[in-house]
Amino acid sequence: MKSRFALTMGDPCGIGPEIILKALKNHPDLYNHGHPVVVGDKSIFLSLMQNLGIQMEIMDFTPDKQINPDPDHLYCLDLGLPPHKPEIGQITAAGGRYAYTAIKKAIECTVRKIFSAIVTAPINKEALQLAKVPYLDHTEILTRLTNSVDTMTLFVTGPLRVFFYSRHIPLRDVAASLSAEQLDTAIMNSCRYLEQIGIARPRLAVAALNPHGGEQGMFGDEELKFLFPAVERARNRAQQVFGPIPADSVFHLAKEGTYDAVLSLYHDQGHIATKTLDFHRTVSLTMGLPFLRTSVDHGTALDIAGTGKASEISMVEAVKAAASYAW
Amino acid sequence: MKSRFALTMGDPCGIGPEIILKALKNHPDLYNHGHPVVVGDKSIFLSLMQNLGIQMEIMDFTPDKQINPDPDHLYCLDLGLPPHKPEIGQITAAGGRYAYTAIKKAIECTVRKIFSAIVTAPINKEALQLAKVPYLDHTEILTRLTNSVDTMTLFVTGPLRVFFYSRHIPLRDVAASLSAEQLDTAIMNSCRYLEQIGIARPRLAVAALNPHGGEQGMFGDEELKFLFPAVERARNRAQQVFGPIPADSVFHLAKEGTYDAVLSLYHDQGHIATKTLDFHRTVSLTMGLPFLRTSVDHGTALDIAGTGKASEISMVEAVKAAASYAW
Repeated sequence: MKSRFALTMGDPCGIGPEIILKALKNHPDLYNHGHPVVVGDKSIFLSLMQNLGIQMEIMDFTPDKQINPDPDHLYCLDLGLPPHKPEIGQITAAGGRYAYTAIKKAIECTVRKIFSAIVTAPINKEALQLAKVPYLDHTEILTRLTNSVDTMTLFVTGPLRVFFYSRHIPLRDVAASLSAEQLDTAIMNSCRYLEQIGIARPRLAVAALNPHGGEQGMFGDEELKFLFPAVERARNRAQQVFGPIPADSVFHLAKEGTYDAVLSLYHDQGHIATKTLDFHRTVSLTMGLPFLRTSVDHGTALDIAGTGKASEISMVEAVKAAASYAW
Repeated sequence: MKSRFALTMGDPCGIGPEIILKALKNHPDLYNHGHPVVVGDKSIFLSLMQNLGIQMEIMDFTPDKQINPDPDHLYCLDLGLPPHKPEIGQITAAGGRYAYTAIKKAIECTVRKIFSAIVTAPINKEALQLAKVPYLDHTEILTRLTNSVDTMTLFVTGPLRVFFYSRHIPLRDVAASLSAEQLDTAIMNSCRYLEQIGIARPRLAVAALNPHGGEQGMFGDEELKFLFPAVERARNRAQQVFGPIPADSVFHLAKEGTYDAVLSLYHDQGHIATKTLDFHRTVSLTMGLPFLRTSVDHGTALDIAGTGKASEISMVEAVKAAASYAW
C-alpha cells in the first residue's frame, strides 16, 4: 500500500486551501508518490472549488478504509467544526482556530500511524494569537504536541540540503551564538536526521562563518576557535563531517553532490543559498519529530488570497518531499 | 572596428596562461564580441602551447596595426622581459614579477585607449610580496596605478548583478560597519556604475542585514536605523532604490529581473547568492577605474597548474563581460 500523508489546509483566509487544490488537481504525478489526504474543513474546500472552477469529488476519509485519491477525488478528514466561510485576506480568530485544529488533528492521526507524514500549508501567527492558541508557529505546535526536543529545520532545494544552526537572531549576534556544545548537538543531529531520511553514512559540510573561512584568523577567528574543533570532534566520533568550508563554495559543492548536506550557521546563510538557487522549489522539512513534516516555504500571502493567482509549485514540491523522505 | 581588450596572463606558475589559451582556442564565438590581446611573456605561451597540444600562431601586437585574432592567431603584447620558464605550481618571485609587469603594461595601454577594458587572469598575493611589489592584490594595483578612489566590486552571474558594501571583514563586525555616509556613497556609486555599463535609470535593491529584514526590529534594528533611512535619502535624490529587502528574496527577485542589481552588505551575502547560482559563471567587474576591468573569480589553483585540468569557463565569461559592458 502506498504511504498516506496528511495535508493540513493552513489558514483558510490565506492561500493554503487554494494551493492544495491546485496541487492535487493539476499534478497527477503526485499520486505516484503516495496518497494525500486533506485535513481541513470540507465546506471551505467545497466553496473554493466553485470559485476556482475546479471539479473534484470530496470523499470522506476514514482510517480503516482503503483510499484511491486521484485528480478527480479529494479525500478529506473533516475537522468536525461548524461549516465556515472564511474572511479571505483577513487576519481572523476563526482562521487561526481552523488552522490550528487541522494541525492538531493531523498530528493526532500521524502519531497513531494513520499517516506517515504531514505536509503543512501556511498559517498566520497573528491569527493564532487572536484564536488564543498558546503556540507561536508550526514548529512550536508540532514540537509541543509531540513532546519533542531538538527539532531542526532542513531545507531541500533539488540536490541541495541545508540545516540551520541558528534561525531568527540578529546578524550581529550570530558569532556569539556559537558554542562547542551546541555545535556538537547540531552536527550530531544533522547526521542523525540525514540517516533518518535514508542517507547512509551521510557526508555533512559545516559552513564557515567569515569570508574565506577567516583565512587563518585574518578575517575572524570563529573558525579556529569553534568550527575546526567541532569538525575534529565529529571526526573522532567517526562521523563524515567536513569543514569549515567557505560559504561561497560550500553550497555549490553540496549542490554538485560532494556533500549530502550543509550545516549553515545563520538564517540568511542557508536561505540565500537555497532560495536564490530556486525560490519556488525550496521545501522545508522539520526533523526531530516522531514523523516527517514538510512545508511550503512561504506565507499565507493574504494580499493575493482568493484571486486564484497563488502558485502551487512549492506545495507540489513539499508533497513530493514528504513522499520521498518519510520513513 | 571591434573593441580591443587586454588579457593579462596572471601568475605564470598558476593556471592563468592555460585558461587564456583554452578560452581563445576553444571558443570561437568570443571573437564576435571583440578583439582579445594577450599581455604577457611570449615564451611562456609558446612553451605552454606545446605542452597542451594547442596550435595557434603568435602574432606581435602593435597598437597602430589592425588585428584579426581568431582561434588560430593569438595576438600578444610581450612584456619585454627576458624569456622565462616558470616553476609551475610554485610561489615564486619571478611569477609575481611577470604577473605584475603584465598588469602594469595593460593599465598603461588601456589608460591610453589602446584597449577598452582589461580582463585579468589570477595572480598570487604571496608571489607579489616575494617580488617586492608594493601592492596587495589586483584591486590595489589597479586603484593605485590609475589614482582611482571608491572602486567597487560588481559580481555578475547571468542576469544577477551584485555590489558589495563591505568585503573582507569578520562577520561579527558587519553590523557595526554600517554608516549613513558610507551607505549613501555605496548606493550612489552603485547607481552610477550601473549607468556606466549601459543601464539607464537603474533599479537598485538594498539587501537587508537581518533575517526577514529584522521584522520591525524584532531580530535586529539595523534596517530601521540605517537601511530604511538610506533608501529614503536615495529616493529623495530621485534614484530608483528599493529596500531593505530580505536577503532570502532579494537575489531571487534580481535574478528574475525585478532589479538591475543588489547592494549586498557583506562578503558572503553576495558571494553565496552568485556562486551557489552558478559557481563557474560568476564574473567579477571592478568599477570606479577609468576603464572596465573584469576578472575570473578564482585563484591561481597551483595544485592543478600544468596538468591541463583547469576549466576556462570563468575566463570565457570574463571576456564576454568585458565585451558587453566596456564603455
